[in-house]
Amino acid sequence: MPKKVDHLKRKRQIAEATWRVILEKGIEHASVRNIAKEANLSLGALRYYFSSQDQLLAYAMDLVKERATERIQQIVSQDIPLKVKVIQALMEMVPTSKETRAEMEIWFSFLIHIRHKKEQRKIDTDGVYAGIQILMHTLQENNMLKDGIDLDLEAEALYSLVDGLAIHALFDPTRIPQEKVKSILSSYMERLYK
Amino acid sequence: MPKKVDHLKRKRQIAEATWRVILEKGIEHASVRNIAKEANLSLGALRYYFSSQDQLLAYAMDLVKERATERIQQIVSQDIPLKVKVIQALMEMVPTSKETRAEMEIWFSFLIHIRHKKEQRKIDTDGVYAGIQILMHTLQENNMLKDGIDLDLEAEALYSLVDGLAIHALFDPTRIPQEKVKSILSSYMERLYK
Repeated sequence: MPKKVDHLKRKRQIAEATWRVILEKGIEHASVRNIAKEANLSLGALRYYFSSQDQLLAYAMDLVKERATERIQQIVSQDIPLKVKVIQALMEMVPTSKETRAEMEIWFSFLIHIRHKKEQRKIDTDGVYAGIQILMHTLQENNMLKDGIDLDLEAEALYSLVDGLAIHALFDPTRIPQEKVKSILSSYMERLYK
Repeated sequence: MPKKVDHLKRKRQIAEATWRVILEKGIEHASVRNIAKEANLSLGALRYYFSSQDQLLAYAMDLVKERATERIQQIVSQDIPLKVKVIQALMEMVPTSKETRAEMEIWFSFLIHIRHKKEQRKIDTDGVYAGIQILMHTLQENNMLKDGIDLDLEAEALYSLVDGLAIHALFDPTRIPQEKVKSILSSYMERLYK
């Protein structure tokens, strides 16, 4: 045992162990016991950080979201043309790498998992919808969208396209390589632009 | 017990009991034992129809697909303009009623469920992609699509839009009522038409 254990770092290690259990065995096996084993911790040590499975899963999910959000914020802060930013940001919402595929599978398993929980807490959204609404409004403010576009409807449509692509890229990555995702998103956005 | 039990009818009753178990308790509880109980059958009687849980789940899934396919074929055979047919057929692929939402949830749970099975049999597709490819080719043959459209890419994009809408309508039906689904699909298709 290291002399000083960074609390946050240990929590993150446990979250990562949770992800591995979900990816390798499925979320139905993500018990506190199995996660402690995967994280090389005693049950008692794990319980010091997370008092329940629900709390642990919620933390593990929030961390997935946090990582994706950070990547997107990094893109948004770049000094590149808005149209390029849009495509890059949308690409982050579709899993085209091993890492993002794993993130999405974890998120997805979790959504299905909590559907049948009795105490169905309000599902925290993955932030994609909110991100796309901001994106559409930014394009509108920059006068880049065709006249007469229904922003609300278009945000919903783009959100569906992105999530649909994400699921297909997750389940059938060979059919939808990164380049294809990019072509689809680019051609879709071009039809919205002036 | 009725004197004559129609073999097919009984199999369908068992499949419907399987659906109920999946919808009410989650697919992780869809054991042969639980399904027999839900169907009011002894374990032995159920095993007469299905020798394994895998066989039973596969049958229950095929039946979901069969029902959706029948509804779409019925639309296709109608004597209505092609553009109207297209929207009606696409609407069948997005759950906007209690029945279609249930079908989709069953299908979806199943897809997640078999991802972690060791003997991962080739997933039978839900037929949506094939249906959309046929739809796009039919529109092309009828000279209704804008020139220079990449049919392969457009089929993939429409498939993603439809599946994304389907998932959103499943998880958040109040945000995406039937009329909104229709508006999104209509406005999307209009951009592809000449």
